[in-house]
Amino acid sequence: MTDGPGGAPKPGMSPTFPTAASTDDLERGSTLAPRFDGDGLIAAVATHADTGEVLMLAWMNAEALQRTLDTGEAHYFSRSRQALWKKGETSGQIQQITEIRIDCDQDAVWLKVRPQGDGGACHTGQRSCFYRVVEDGKLVTR
Amino acid sequence: MTDGPGGAPKPGMSPTFPTAASTDDLERGSTLAPRFDGDGLIAAVATHADTGEVLMLAWMNAEALQRTLDTGEAHYFSRSRQALWKKGETSGQIQQITEIRIDCDQDAVWLKVRPQGDGGACHTGQRSCFYRVVEDGKLVTR
Repeated sequence: MTDGPGGAPKPGMSPTFPTAASTDDLERGSTLAPRFDGDGLIAAVATHADTGEVLMLAWMNAEALQRTLDTGEAHYFSRSRQALWKKGETSGQIQQITEIRIDCDQDAVWLKVRPQGDGGACHTGQRSCFYRVVEDGKLVTR
Repeated sequence: MTDGPGGAPKPGMSPTFPTAASTDDLERGSTLAPRFDGDGLIAAVATHADTGEVLMLAWMNAEALQRTLDTGEAHYFSRSRQALWKKGETSGQIQQITEIRIDCDQDAVWLKVRPQGDGGACHTGQRSCFYRVVEDGKLVTR
């Protein structure tokens, strides 16, 4: 972490979001007051801005959400690596945000994105991470 | 919990799902091997089977997932109430499943559903829980 003078948040410093004062504020207000869970995360679902297909589901901490809002490109938090993660940084599958929505109790966000690079979102090479259907208790790819 | 002889899972007994033997099995196999988190939950996103709209994001424990598979109607686990929850049981907004998908690392499911009752999914009266867009850091309902 740098220790320079103020301005932009320093790397590693977590941005803070307000807390809703009441359930009514949370559900009907105009204040973005995300409710991060005990691990400091909220769920984020990304759909393709053009096709509507669900591409992936991942998690964001406050920093990932703030960077997503600031840059217009999706940032997540990797639970396995415990690290901030800009989608596409290595794969080229940058997700340009066209819209961000938040749910009633502000513990989940919905990103409409336009994937760059090869147009996919999954590290397996599939376009969407949800490439398998559950049929009779088994998984079928299609 | 009852202590009777075997057969169908007893109320309160958690069904068990297999664990994938390898990353390859997890990502490319045909075995449903959901990876529940430390709280025993996976994320579930529900979209409208006809419009594709994201309706809600919630959580499932093993029992909720098994009941969803068995009944064709969405069951979730309420983190706030720490209880199994059949969607629509009181509101009438039963979610009939048309398709269930699971993601690459099997820690999230995507349900395509047809909401019954008034056709909505949100307790606020909105059709989708994601009725607010983040614009310039503020929430706008539309």
